[in-house]
Amino acid sequence: MFVHERSVAFHEVDAAGLVFFPWFLVWAHDAMDAFFSGLPGGYVGLITERRVGLPAVAVQSEFKRPVRYGDRMRVEVTTARLGNRSLTLRYQFFRGSPGELCAEVLHTVVATDLERLVSVDMPEDVRRVAREHLAEERAD
Amino acid sequence: MFVHERSVAFHEVDAAGLVFFPWFLVWAHDAMDAFFSGLPGGYVGLITERRVGLPAVAVQSEFKRPVRYGDRMRVEVTTARLGNRSLTLRYQFFRGSPGELCAEVLHTVVATDLERLVSVDMPEDVRRVAREHLAEERAD
Amino acid sequence: MFVHERSVAFHEVDAAGLVFFPWFLVWAHDAMDAFFSGLPGGYVGLITERRVGLPAVAVQSEFKRPVRYGDRMRVEVTTARLGNRSLTLRYQFFRGSPGELCAEVLHTVVATDLERLVSVDMPEDVRRVAREHLAEERAD
Amino acid sequence: MFVHERSVAFHEVDAAGLVFFPWFLVWAHDAMDAFFSGLPGGYVGLITERRVGLPAVAVQSEFKRPVRYGDRMRVEVTTARLGNRSLTLRYQFFRGSPGELCAEVLHTVVATDLERLVSVDMPEDVRRVAREHLAEERAD
Repeated sequence: MFVHERSVAFHEVDAAGLVFFPWFLVWAHDAMDAFFSGLPGGYVGLITERRVGLPAVAVQSEFKRPVRYGDRMRVEVTTARLGNRSLTLRYQFFRGSPGELCAEVLHTVVATDLERLVSVDMPEDVRRVAREHLAEERAD
Repeated sequence: MFVHERSVAFHEVDAAGLVFFPWFLVWAHDAMDAFFSGLPGGYVGLITERRVGLPAVAVQSEFKRPVRYGDRMRVEVTTARLGNRSLTLRYQFFRGSPGELCAEVLHTVVATDLERLVSVDMPEDVRRVAREHLAEERAD
Repeated sequence: MFVHERSVAFHEVDAAGLVFFPWFLVWAHDAMDAFFSGLPGGYVGLITERRVGLPAVAVQSEFKRPVRYGDRMRVEVTTARLGNRSLTLRYQFFRGSPGELCAEVLHTVVATDLERLVSVDMPEDVRRVAREHLAEERAD
Repeated sequence: MFVHERSVAFHEVDAAGLVFFPWFLVWAHDAMDAFFSGLPGGYVGLITERRVGLPAVAVQSEFKRPVRYGDRMRVEVTTARLGNRSLTLRYQFFRGSPGELCAEVLHTVVATDLERLVSVDMPEDVRRVAREHLAEERAD
């Protein structure tokens, strides 16, 4: 499991005073960027130097509790599925300690050659990071 | 079916040059706002005057084709499910004519008293709009 | 004078319930995009085909009245200054009719070769659009 | 001088591949939030408990160098002016070490009662933080 932390910013709420739900996906992507920070050049190097990206092909999210400006989020990231060209990351967003589960996101990405926009085999170092955080089998 | 149109803005792409996927959810929300514009005072009146909101409790999205700055999106909105307190809208994002399906979002919301943050019965006029656009039974 | 209209979206407010001020600059940029929509291929063609951009080098903004979700903004765009390689657009954001001035933005951009990231002469057709909307001399 | 650091995120660039300039103002606001984090309850407490906000009334920005995804920004914050009800913060955005100045923002805010939306005297503890970081007199 990989852990990423962040606080809800002043502008991430909406006219109802709660976090605007697409921000959870932005935070998920930020957490994925941090998840892969150990790659040579980091995730940014993957994108800008090696020109391999991980565009989303599917997202499933559940929003379980309202979240507000200033709330501190602990994002736990695991690999839910690891294929040849695609993988699914699971992000669980906890608030406080021990932590209420506020949201959960499943994010499926496909390794993509950004010049030709075709899928490619997952680079070996990307796969290695994902494998390290592969979730144990579980009942859910 | 309700139709909403928009173009992809200059800032809605990411460092890979493609639309950053959370924007599809922002566009879905914008389309929902327009979907309910016939309410007295519009969706904005529902939120700010009547203090009833429709926060998301679940989102499922599929991203099928890369979308870029300047692409014109035709968003088709239907009601996929209509419950007492919740409903699910389906948004299909088409590009061009006759139209390639680029993304699909299922967005489940719960009618919520924004002062007390508890679920409430769907207001009758909200329900009526949703019922008008209820999808025909279909095979998918 | 060029006129662009838009409504304040649900997610463009902040935890104080007012528009988060950087959105005025996003709307200014959207209005600039529309301002140049008569170019062949539009502003999007300038960026993606001709690879000439208009990055901001300076912005001055005044925010005069609080703006909220649902407010309808009328954006009036004029060319405040037209140079060889740079130009300054002035955006005035009015609400209602006849219209309260809520914000004003001065936005200076430099014509830039996006491949080499160096300034270039303003393309003639860009200059022509800017010249059409050159502000009359005025007292302010 | 107060220092805040952040990296440019994947989604903060635009279709020209450079940071979309309104993000500098978002980052400025994030840095202001951190600047005031020593208040009781932090800046979030000022907004949500004490219901005093610091809405922007004016912003002046210069963008001096293109900034890209992954760039590490060092934001130096000083108080440029301290009045009874308003104050101006200066943010300088440096990249690398010793540091190229990439952008500068002057951000004038007015202490505001968020319930009545009228200006109020700057709360004493807010003023104290601002005074600690008051810029030395300088030539520019």
